[in-house]
Amino acid sequence: MRIALLGGTGDIGEGLALRWARDTDHEILIGSRDPEKAREAVETYEDRLADHGATGDLKGFANEMAADRADVVVLSVPPYYAGDTVEAVADRLDAETILVTPAVGMKGDEDGMHYHPPGAGSVTALVAQRAPDEVPVVGAFHNLAAGKLAAIDVEIDLDTLIVGDDADAKRTVTQLAESIEGLRALDAGPIANAAEVESVTPLVINIAKYNDDLSDVGAKWI
Amino acid sequence: MRIALLGGTGDIGEGLALRWARDTDHEILIGSRDPEKAREAVETYEDRLADHGATGDLKGFANEMAADRADVVVLSVPPYYAGDTVEAVADRLDAETILVTPAVGMKGDEDGMHYHPPGAGSVTALVAQRAPDEVPVVGAFHNLAAGKLAAIDVEIDLDTLIVGDDADAKRTVTQLAESIEGLRALDAGPIANAAEVESVTPLVINIAKYNDDLSDVGAKWI
Repeated sequence: MRIALLGGTGDIGEGLALRWARDTDHEILIGSRDPEKAREAVETYEDRLADHGATGDLKGFANEMAADRADVVVLSVPPYYAGDTVEAVADRLDAETILVTPAVGMKGDEDGMHYHPPGAGSVTALVAQRAPDEVPVVGAFHNLAAGKLAAIDVEIDLDTLIVGDDADAKRTVTQLAESIEGLRALDAGPIANAAEVESVTPLVINIAKYNDDLSDVGAKWI
Repeated sequence: MRIALLGGTGDIGEGLALRWARDTDHEILIGSRDPEKAREAVETYEDRLADHGATGDLKGFANEMAADRADVVVLSVPPYYAGDTVEAVADRLDAETILVTPAVGMKGDEDGMHYHPPGAGSVTALVAQRAPDEVPVVGAFHNLAAGKLAAIDVEIDLDTLIVGDDADAKRTVTQLAESIEGLRALDAGPIANAAEVESVTPLVINIAKYNDDLSDVGAKWI
Protein backbone atom coordinates (compact mmCIF):
# COMPACT_ATOMS: atom_id res chain seq x y z
CA MET A 1 0.00 0.00 0.00
CA ARG A 2 1.10 3.56 -0.63
CA ILE A 3 0.69 5.93 2.34
CA ALA A 4 1.16 9.67 1.85
CA LEU A 5 2.01 11.75 4.90
CA LEU A 6 1.22 15.34 3.94
CA GLY A 7 3.18 17.64 6.19
CA GLY A 8 5.16 14.51 6.94
CA THR A 9 8.31 16.47 7.75
CA GLY A 10 7.43 17.12 11.38
CA ASP A 11 5.46 16.25 14.50
CA ILE A 12 3.23 13.16 14.30
CA GLY A 13 4.13 12.57 10.62
CA GLU A 14 7.72 11.79 11.52
CA GLY A 15 6.85 9.00 13.96
CA LEU A 16 4.24 7.45 11.67
CA ALA A 17 6.68 7.55 8.72
CA LEU A 18 9.52 5.95 10.70
CA ARG A 19 7.40 3.24 12.28
CA TRP A 20 5.50 2.31 9.09
CA ALA A 21 8.80 2.28 7.17
CA ARG A 22 10.38 -0.02 9.74
CA ASP A 23 7.42 -2.26 10.64
CA THR A 24 5.75 -2.77 7.23
CA ASP A 25 6.41 -3.11 3.51
CA HIS A 26 4.24 -0.11 2.67
CA GLU A 27 5.61 2.62 0.44
CA ILE A 28 5.80 5.84 2.47
CA LEU A 29 5.39 9.07 0.50
CA ILE A 30 6.50 12.10 2.50
CA GLY A 31 4.66 15.20 1.29
CA SER A 32 5.50 18.83 1.86
CA ARG A 33 4.49 22.09 0.22
CA ASP A 34 8.19 22.27 -0.72
CA PRO A 35 9.25 18.98 -2.41
CA GLU A 36 12.92 19.69 -1.61
CA LYS A 37 12.01 19.77 2.08
CA ALA A 38 10.20 16.42 1.67
CA ARG A 39 13.28 14.84 0.05
CA GLU A 40 15.50 16.18 2.85
CA ALA A 41 13.13 14.66 5.42
CA VAL A 42 13.35 11.31 3.62
CA GLU A 43 17.16 11.40 3.85
CA THR A 44 16.97 12.21 7.56
CA TYR A 45 14.47 9.41 8.17
CA GLU A 46 16.58 6.90 6.21
CA ASP A 47 19.58 7.84 8.36
CA ARG A 48 17.52 7.47 11.53
CA LEU A 49 16.31 4.03 10.41
CA ALA A 50 19.86 2.98 9.47
CA ASP A 51 21.04 4.05 12.95
CA HIS A 52 18.68 1.41 14.32
CA GLY A 53 19.59 -1.24 11.76
CA ALA A 54 16.34 -0.76 9.84
CA THR A 55 15.39 0.24 6.32
CA GLY A 56 12.19 1.38 4.69
CA ASP A 57 10.62 2.41 1.41
CA LEU A 58 10.45 6.22 1.66
CA LYS A 59 10.12 8.88 -1.05
CA GLY A 60 9.67 12.66 -0.97
CA PHE A 61 7.21 14.68 -3.05
CA ALA A 62 5.20 17.87 -3.18
CA ASN A 63 1.91 17.32 -1.30
CA GLU A 64 -0.12 17.11 -4.55
CA MET A 65 2.14 14.43 -6.07
CA ALA A 66 2.20 12.43 -2.85
CA ALA A 67 -1.63 12.53 -2.61
CA ASP A 68 -1.95 11.58 -6.29
CA ARG A 69 0.06 8.38 -5.85
CA ALA A 70 -1.33 7.27 -2.48
CA ASP A 71 -4.02 4.83 -1.37
CA VAL A 72 -4.15 6.48 2.05
CA VAL A 73 -3.44 10.19 2.64
CA VAL A 74 -2.64 11.28 6.21
CA LEU A 75 -3.09 15.01 6.87
CA SER A 76 -0.30 15.39 9.42
CA VAL A 77 -0.48 19.18 9.25
CA PRO A 78 -1.39 21.72 11.95
CA PRO A 79 -5.20 21.98 12.40
CA TYR A 80 -5.45 25.46 10.88
CA TYR A 81 -3.92 24.11 7.62
CA ALA A 82 -6.08 20.97 7.49
CA GLY A 83 -8.92 22.47 5.42
CA ASP A 84 -6.62 24.27 2.99
CA THR A 85 -4.44 21.19 2.55
CA VAL A 86 -7.49 19.10 1.66
CA GLU A 87 -8.52 21.67 -0.94
CA ALA A 88 -4.99 21.84 -2.37
CA VAL A 89 -4.99 18.09 -3.07
CA ALA A 90 -8.74 17.57 -3.63
CA ASP A 91 -8.47 16.86 -7.37
CA ARG A 92 -5.88 14.13 -6.66
CA LEU A 93 -8.32 12.22 -4.41
CA ASP A 94 -11.13 9.82 -5.34
CA ALA A 95 -13.40 7.19 -3.80
CA GLU A 96 -10.41 4.80 -3.63
CA THR A 97 -8.32 7.21 -1.56
CA ILE A 98 -8.79 7.27 2.23
CA LEU A 99 -8.17 10.63 3.87
CA VAL A 100 -6.91 10.32 7.46
CA THR A 101 -6.88 13.24 9.87
CA PRO A 102 -4.92 13.24 13.17
CA ALA A 103 -5.01 17.05 13.80
CA VAL A 104 -6.64 18.65 16.84
CA GLY A 105 -7.60 22.28 17.48
CA MET A 106 -6.23 23.51 20.80
CA LYS A 107 -5.58 26.74 22.65
CA GLY A 108 -3.03 27.02 25.42
CA ASP A 109 -2.86 29.31 28.45
CA GLU A 110 -0.97 29.28 31.75
CA ASP A 111 -3.21 26.48 33.08
CA GLY A 112 -2.66 24.09 30.19
CA MET A 113 -4.11 23.16 26.82
CA HIS A 114 -7.81 23.38 26.03
CA TYR A 115 -9.82 21.76 23.27
CA HIS A 116 -10.78 24.36 20.68
CA PRO A 117 -12.65 22.70 17.81
CA PRO A 118 -13.50 24.49 14.57
CA GLY A 119 -17.11 25.50 13.90
CA ALA A 120 -17.71 22.16 12.16
CA GLY A 121 -17.51 20.54 15.63
CA SER A 122 -14.17 18.76 15.15
CA VAL A 123 -11.23 18.85 12.76
CA THR A 124 -12.40 15.47 11.48
CA ALA A 125 -15.83 16.94 10.62
CA LEU A 126 -14.14 19.97 9.00
CA VAL A 127 -11.98 17.71 6.81
CA ALA A 128 -15.07 15.67 5.85
CA GLN A 129 -16.86 18.90 4.86
CA ARG A 130 -13.95 20.12 2.72
CA ALA A 131 -13.12 16.78 1.08
CA PRO A 132 -14.86 15.72 -2.15
CA ASP A 133 -18.07 13.84 -1.28
CA GLU A 134 -16.87 10.47 -2.56
CA VAL A 135 -13.63 10.48 -0.51
CA PRO A 136 -13.92 8.54 2.77
CA VAL A 137 -12.54 10.42 5.79
CA VAL A 138 -11.21 8.72 8.93
CA GLY A 139 -9.98 10.36 12.14
CA ALA A 140 -7.04 8.52 13.76
CA PHE A 141 -3.64 8.92 15.48
CA HIS A 142 -4.81 11.98 17.49
CA ASN A 143 -3.55 11.24 20.95
CA LEU A 144 -0.10 9.77 20.35
CA ALA A 145 2.81 11.69 21.82
CA ALA A 146 4.81 12.80 18.77
CA GLY A 147 8.16 12.62 20.56
CA LYS A 148 7.66 9.06 21.76
CA LEU A 149 6.41 7.92 18.36
CA ALA A 150 9.42 9.43 16.59
CA ALA A 151 11.87 7.79 19.04
CA ILE A 152 11.80 4.46 17.24
CA ASP A 153 14.06 2.78 19.78
CA VAL A 154 11.22 3.26 22.32
CA GLU A 155 8.77 0.36 22.43
CA ILE A 156 5.20 1.58 22.63
CA ASP A 157 2.07 -0.01 24.10
CA LEU A 158 -0.64 2.48 23.17
CA ASP A 159 -4.11 2.75 21.74
CA THR A 160 -5.38 4.96 18.96
CA LEU A 161 -9.07 5.71 18.48
CA ILE A 162 -10.66 5.51 15.03
CA VAL A 163 -13.71 7.52 13.92
CA GLY A 164 -15.34 7.51 10.51
CA ASP A 165 -18.57 7.01 8.61
CA ASP A 166 -17.22 4.49 6.05
CA ALA A 167 -16.79 1.00 7.52
CA ASP A 168 -14.35 -0.22 4.83
CA ALA A 169 -12.12 2.82 5.22
CA LYS A 170 -12.12 2.41 9.01
CA ARG A 171 -11.13 -1.23 8.62
CA THR A 172 -8.19 -0.31 6.37
CA VAL A 173 -6.98 2.41 8.77
CA THR A 174 -7.40 0.04 11.73
CA GLN A 175 -5.16 -2.52 9.98
CA LEU A 176 -2.68 0.20 9.08
CA ALA A 177 -2.56 1.44 12.70
CA GLU A 178 -2.09 -2.08 14.05
CA SER A 179 0.72 -2.75 11.57
CA ILE A 180 2.78 -0.48 13.85
CA GLU A 181 4.24 -2.63 16.63
CA GLY A 182 2.62 -1.92 20.01
CA LEU A 183 -0.25 0.14 18.64
CA ARG A 184 -3.85 -1.05 19.07
CA ALA A 185 -6.75 0.59 17.21
CA LEU A 186 -10.19 0.93 18.84
CA ASP A 187 -13.42 2.03 17.20
CA ALA A 188 -14.91 5.24 18.64
CA GLY A 189 -17.84 5.35 16.22
CA PRO A 190 -18.79 7.78 13.44
CA ILE A 191 -17.37 11.24 12.72
CA ALA A 192 -20.11 12.67 14.98
CA ASN A 193 -18.08 11.24 17.89
CA ALA A 194 -14.76 12.83 16.81
CA ALA A 195 -14.79 15.74 19.29
CA GLU A 196 -14.56 13.42 22.29
CA VAL A 197 -11.59 11.66 20.65
CA GLU A 198 -9.77 14.85 19.63
CA SER A 199 -10.19 16.43 23.07
CA VAL A 200 -7.99 13.75 24.62
CA THR A 201 -4.99 15.42 22.95
CA PRO A 202 -4.99 18.58 25.12
CA LEU A 203 -5.70 16.31 28.09
CA VAL A 204 -2.60 14.17 27.58
CA ILE A 205 -0.56 17.38 27.25
CA ASN A 206 -2.01 18.56 30.59
CA ILE A 207 -1.28 15.21 32.25
CA ALA A 208 2.31 15.45 30.96
CA LYS A 209 2.59 18.99 32.35
CA TYR A 210 1.36 18.18 35.87
CA ASN A 211 2.89 14.74 36.51
CA ASP A 212 6.56 13.87 36.78
CA ASP A 213 7.70 10.94 34.61
CA LEU A 214 4.70 11.21 32.26
CA SER A 215 6.27 13.63 29.78
CA ASP A 216 5.29 11.52 26.75
CA VAL A 217 2.03 10.14 28.05
CA GLY A 218 -0.60 8.38 25.95
CA ALA A 219 -3.73 6.36 26.64
CA LYS A 220 -4.64 2.69 27.03
CA TRP A 221 -8.35 1.94 27.19
CA ILE A 222 -8.77 -1.09 29.43
CA MET B 1 -11.69 10.52 57.84
CA ARG B 2 -15.40 10.93 57.21
CA ILE B 3 -16.47 10.78 53.57
CA ALA B 4 -20.01 11.72 52.58
CA LEU B 5 -21.36 10.37 49.29
CA LEU B 6 -24.35 12.56 48.44
CA GLY B 7 -26.56 10.66 46.07
CA GLY B 8 -24.53 7.68 47.22
CA THR B 9 -27.37 5.26 46.57
CA GLY B 10 -26.58 4.74 42.90
CA ASP B 11 -24.13 4.85 40.01
CA ILE B 12 -20.55 5.90 40.85
CA GLY B 13 -21.45 6.47 44.54
CA GLU B 14 -22.09 2.77 45.05
CA GLY B 15 -18.66 1.67 43.83
CA LEU B 16 -16.81 4.36 45.76
CA ALA B 17 -18.76 3.51 48.95
CA LEU B 18 -18.09 -0.23 48.65
CA ARG B 19 -14.40 0.11 47.82
CA TRP B 20 -13.63 2.76 50.45
CA ALA B 21 -15.57 0.71 53.02
CA ARG B 22 -13.60 -2.41 52.16
CA ASP B 23 -10.14 -0.93 51.50
CA THR B 24 -9.90 1.75 54.22
CA ASP B 25 -10.89 2.61 57.80
CA HIS B 26 -12.73 5.73 56.69
CA GLU B 27 -16.28 6.32 57.89
CA ILE B 28 -18.58 6.33 54.85
CA LEU B 29 -21.71 8.46 55.13
CA ILE B 30 -24.26 7.61 52.45
CA GLY B 31 -26.42 10.65 51.73
CA SER B 32 -29.76 10.82 49.97
CA ARG B 33 -32.56 13.36 49.80
CA ASP B 34 -34.59 10.63 51.54
CA PRO B 35 -32.69 9.39 54.64
CA GLU B 36 -34.67 6.15 54.64
CA LYS B 37 -33.34 5.41 51.14
CA ALA B 38 -29.81 6.11 52.40
CA ARG B 39 -30.23 3.65 55.27
CA GLU B 40 -31.59 1.00 52.89
CA ALA B 41 -28.56 1.52 50.64
CA VAL B 42 -26.25 1.03 53.63
CA GLU B 43 -27.95 -2.30 54.42
CA THR B 44 -27.56 -3.40 50.80
CA TYR B 45 -23.90 -2.37 50.75
CA GLU B 46 -23.20 -4.15 54.05
CA ASP B 47 -24.74 -7.32 52.59
CA ARG B 48 -22.65 -6.97 49.43
CA LEU B 49 -19.49 -6.53 51.50
CA ALA B 50 -20.38 -9.51 53.69
CA ASP B 51 -20.88 -11.64 50.54
CA HIS B 52 -17.22 -10.98 49.80
CA GLY B 53 -16.02 -11.52 53.38
CA ALA B 54 -15.54 -7.80 53.97
CA THR B 55 -16.94 -5.24 56.37
CA GLY B 56 -16.96 -1.46 56.47
CA ASP B 57 -18.03 1.54 58.49
CA LEU B 58 -21.16 2.77 56.67
CA LYS B 59 -24.02 4.97 57.86
CA GLY B 60 -27.06 6.49 56.08
CA PHE B 61 -28.28 10.08 56.43
CA ALA B 62 -30.17 12.84 54.68
CA ASN B 63 -27.75 14.72 52.39
CA GLU B 64 -27.56 17.74 54.75
CA MET B 65 -26.66 15.60 57.78
CA ALA B 66 -24.09 13.60 55.81
CA ALA B 67 -22.46 16.81 54.54
CA ASP B 68 -22.49 18.34 58.03
CA ARG B 69 -20.50 15.45 59.51
CA ALA B 70 -18.04 14.90 56.65
CA ASP B 71 -14.46 16.01 55.97
CA VAL B 72 -14.90 15.22 52.27
CA VAL B 73 -18.23 15.51 50.43
CA VAL B 74 -18.56 13.68 47.09
CA LEU B 75 -21.38 14.96 44.85
CA SER B 76 -22.25 11.63 43.23
CA VAL B 77 -25.47 13.01 41.78
CA PRO B 78 -26.53 13.47 38.14
CA PRO B 79 -24.97 16.62 36.62
CA TYR B 80 -28.25 18.54 36.46
CA TYR B 81 -28.63 18.15 40.26
CA ALA B 82 -25.03 19.10 41.09
CA GLY B 83 -25.63 22.85 41.50
CA ASP B 84 -28.85 22.43 43.50
CA THR B 85 -27.28 19.79 45.73
CA VAL B 86 -24.39 22.13 46.54
CA GLU B 87 -26.84 24.88 47.47
CA ALA B 88 -28.91 22.48 49.59
CA VAL B 89 -25.88 21.61 51.75
CA ALA B 90 -23.94 24.91 51.44
CA ASP B 91 -24.47 26.00 55.05
CA ARG B 92 -23.05 22.64 56.24
CA LEU B 93 -19.75 23.22 54.42
CA ASP B 94 -16.71 25.28 55.47
CA ALA B 95 -13.05 25.79 54.58
CA GLU B 96 -12.25 22.43 56.21
CA THR B 97 -14.69 20.51 53.98
CA ILE B 98 -13.51 19.38 50.56
CA LEU B 99 -16.21 19.21 47.91
CA VAL B 100 -15.53 16.54 45.25
CA THR B 101 -17.41 16.41 41.95
CA PRO B 102 -17.38 13.39 39.60
CA ALA B 103 -20.43 14.38 37.48
CA VAL B 104 -20.28 15.01 33.72
CA GLY B 105 -22.82 16.69 31.43
CA MET B 106 -23.57 14.52 28.39
CA LYS B 107 -26.13 14.19 25.63
CA GLY B 108 -26.73 10.96 23.78
CA ASP B 109 -27.95 10.26 20.26
CA GLU B 110 -27.86 7.28 17.90
CA ASP B 111 -24.11 7.79 17.29
CA GLY B 112 -23.09 7.77 20.92
CA MET B 113 -22.57 10.11 23.87
CA HIS B 114 -21.36 13.68 23.46
CA TYR B 115 -19.83 16.03 25.99
CA HIS B 116 -22.34 18.72 26.92
CA PRO B 117 -20.88 21.01 29.59
CA PRO B 118 -22.91 23.63 31.45
CA GLY B 119 -22.39 27.32 30.67
CA ALA B 120 -19.73 27.51 33.38
CA GLY B 121 -17.50 25.42 31.08
CA SER B 122 -17.55 22.20 33.12
CA VAL B 123 -19.57 20.69 35.97
CA THR B 124 -16.48 21.19 38.16
CA ALA B 125 -16.48 24.93 37.37
CA LEU B 126 -20.24 25.09 38.00
CA VAL B 127 -19.84 23.44 41.41
CA ALA B 128 -17.01 25.85 42.25
CA GLN B 129 -19.27 28.79 41.31
CA ARG B 130 -22.14 27.55 43.44
CA ALA B 131 -20.09 26.49 46.48
CA PRO B 132 -19.29 28.98 49.25
CA ASP B 133 -16.04 30.81 48.40
CA GLU B 134 -14.02 29.26 51.21
CA VAL B 135 -14.88 25.64 50.30
CA PRO B 136 -12.21 23.94 48.17
CA VAL B 137 -13.61 22.10 45.13
CA VAL B 138 -11.89 19.14 43.47
CA GLY B 139 -12.97 17.25 40.32
CA ALA B 140 -12.24 13.52 40.47
CA PHE B 141 -13.60 10.02 39.73
CA HIS B 142 -15.17 11.12 36.39
CA ASN B 143 -14.15 8.39 34.04
CA LEU B 144 -14.56 5.24 36.09
CA ALA B 145 -17.09 2.70 34.81
CA ALA B 146 -19.75 2.60 37.53
CA GLY B 147 -20.57 -1.06 36.97
CA LYS B 148 -16.97 -2.22 37.23
CA LEU B 149 -16.35 -0.10 40.33
CA ALA B 150 -19.45 -1.49 42.06
CA ALA B 151 -18.45 -5.10 41.25
CA ILE B 152 -16.05 -5.34 44.17
CA ASP B 153 -14.91 -8.84 43.26
CA VAL B 154 -13.41 -7.31 40.09
CA GLU B 155 -9.81 -6.14 40.52
CA ILE B 156 -9.25 -2.78 38.89
CA ASP B 157 -6.12 -1.19 37.41
CA LEU B 158 -7.30 2.28 36.47
CA ASP B 159 -6.41 5.95 36.69
CA THR B 160 -8.52 8.85 37.84
CA LEU B 161 -7.68 12.44 36.96
CA ILE B 162 -7.73 15.16 39.63
CA VAL B 163 -8.43 18.85 38.93
CA GLY B 164 -8.63 21.65 41.47
CA ASP B 165 -7.30 25.06 42.45
CA ASP B 166 -6.42 24.16 46.07
CA ALA B 167 -3.22 22.12 46.34
CA ASP B 168 -3.95 20.78 49.84
CA ALA B 169 -7.44 19.64 48.86
CA LYS B 170 -6.06 17.94 45.73
CA ARG B 171 -3.47 16.14 47.84
CA THR B 172 -6.16 14.82 50.20
CA VAL B 173 -8.37 13.64 47.32
CA THR B 174 -5.35 12.05 45.62
CA GLN B 175 -4.60 10.06 48.79
CA LEU B 176 -8.26 9.14 49.13
CA ALA B 177 -8.40 7.93 45.51
CA GLU B 178 -5.22 5.89 45.90
CA SER B 179 -6.55 4.28 49.09
CA ILE B 180 -8.77 2.27 46.72
CA GLU B 181 -6.83 -0.78 45.58
CA GLY B 182 -5.84 -0.58 41.91
CA LEU B 183 -6.70 3.10 41.48
CA ARG B 184 -3.99 5.65 40.63
CA ALA B 185 -4.64 9.40 40.78
CA LEU B 186 -2.99 11.78 38.31
CA ASP B 187 -2.96 15.57 38.42
CA ALA B 188 -4.67 17.24 35.44
CA GLY B 189 -4.15 20.79 36.71
CA PRO B 190 -6.56 23.49 37.87
CA ILE B 191 -10.35 23.64 37.47
CA ALA B 192 -9.78 25.50 34.18
CA ASN B 193 -8.65 22.11 32.77
CA ALA B 194 -11.75 20.20 33.96
CA ALA B 195 -13.58 20.10 30.60
CA GLU B 196 -10.86 17.95 29.00
CA VAL B 197 -11.10 15.54 31.95
CA GLU B 198 -14.90 15.38 32.02
CA SER B 199 -15.15 14.82 28.26
CA VAL B 200 -13.39 11.46 28.60
CA THR B 201 -16.58 10.10 30.18
CA PRO B 202 -18.71 10.17 26.99
CA LEU B 203 -15.64 8.86 25.14
CA VAL B 204 -15.30 5.74 27.31
CA ILE B 205 -19.04 5.12 26.83
CA ASN B 206 -18.51 5.35 23.04
CA ILE B 207 -15.50 3.01 23.18
CA ALA B 208 -17.63 0.54 25.16
CA LYS B 209 -20.41 0.81 22.57
CA TYR B 210 -18.22 0.17 19.52
CA ASN B 211 -15.77 -2.46 20.79
CA ASP B 212 -16.56 -5.99 21.90
CA ASP B 213 -15.12 -6.98 25.28
CA LEU B 214 -14.69 -3.36 26.42
CA SER B 215 -18.12 -2.95 27.99
CA ASP B 216 -16.71 -1.50 31.25
CA VAL B 217 -13.73 0.32 29.80
CA GLY B 218 -11.64 2.91 31.65
CA ALA B 219 -8.36 4.69 31.04
CA LYS B 220 -4.71 4.18 31.96
CA TRP B 221 -2.41 7.09 31.12
CA ILE B 222 0.99 5.60 30.31
